[in-house]
Amino acid sequence: MSNNLVPVGLSNKHLHLSQEHIEILFGEGHVLTNMKELGQPGQFACEEKVDIVGPKGTLKGVRVLGPARGKTQIEISFADGFVLGVKPPVKDSGDLAGSPGAKIVGPKGEVTIEEGIIAAARHIHMHTSDAETFGVVDKDLVKVKIEGKRGLIFENVLVRVHPTYALEMHVDIEEGNAAGLKNGHMVEVLK
Amino acid sequence: MSNNLVPVGLSNKHLHLSQEHIEILFGEGHVLTNMKELGQPGQFACEEKVDIVGPKGTLKGVRVLGPARGKTQIEISFADGFVLGVKPPVKDSGDLAGSPGAKIVGPKGEVTIEEGIIAAARHIHMHTSDAETFGVVDKDLVKVKIEGKRGLIFENVLVRVHPTYALEMHVDIEEGNAAGLKNGHMVEVLK
Repeated sequence: MSNNLVPVGLSNKHLHLSQEHIEILFGEGHVLTNMKELGQPGQFACEEKVDIVGPKGTLKGVRVLGPARGKTQIEISFADGFVLGVKPPVKDSGDLAGSPGAKIVGPKGEVTIEEGIIAAARHIHMHTSDAETFGVVDKDLVKVKIEGKRGLIFENVLVRVHPTYALEMHVDIEEGNAAGLKNGHMVEVLK
Repeated sequence: MSNNLVPVGLSNKHLHLSQEHIEILFGEGHVLTNMKELGQPGQFACEEKVDIVGPKGTLKGVRVLGPARGKTQIEISFADGFVLGVKPPVKDSGDLAGSPGAKIVGPKGEVTIEEGIIAAARHIHMHTSDAETFGVVDKDLVKVKIEGKRGLIFENVLVRVHPTYALEMHVDIEEGNAAGLKNGHMVEVLK
């Protein structure tokens, strides 16, 4: 049995908001409401939802993840992009240059962003101590093997290491379904 | 450059109908209308569409592929299954035992099938001469490598060999999106 196992977290469409945009969308002084803690310490799913309006269609009731970030970022799948009428580039979180924008509609207002829609590149969060165990460093690319009828090996999986991270591999719903994965499935990082 | 290259065909949700069900759904004596030839000789997308009704929801306007088959078979993605409220098993075409059923609604009538919904297992069609070139036989399982930012290696890819087949790898939309594939992309069968 391999020791290089990582639990999977499937990412459905969601967005992160700047405090400025939170106040435009939900009202002055608004603070995001923590509905449920996520796998990464300090990160949470919010009660708050918004509509994302693209050139072709709308994604209704997209959940906000907290806390507030420096810059608004919308993470969707290719299928979601088809609904909106935009083609999300596969990018690492925070790398928004050249990505498409959208109109975001909240209960108290709306805001149009010029860029910010990405398909988040698959990645593994690791605590500093996990990285030592796995023998990797921040920004390494690794391969990850998934067993089963839909078995596959993901290549180019970005490793992110930080003392505040918990061990977890993030893939989007399409990647998860393509590999027959559910939340919490254990997958193997290949040496 | 490898010589073991295969073009990709992405499968969106669709269904095959028995002649009996065609006549229930579209009227007595109805013959399917060829709208567009598909990659496999003799197979075609039809003008005809139906609604698929599951326990939780409906997939509207699902395209019929022709010609008529011995048994009705509905091929959907996991995401489509979520809409319907059923969990499609990953199975090879024709292997419908134990799969969920649904109600199929056409313009002239409706029919309920007890089984027939699958997520088609990824597979490669090969002409007999292709199989010789690739050094494989019918029902082999091979690995297929996809390059790029979403690069991955699909394992357990079923090879189907027949003198009427044309060389083409079939994956569903979620598998295609997970690997960043478009129709006609060339992918590599690994020895």
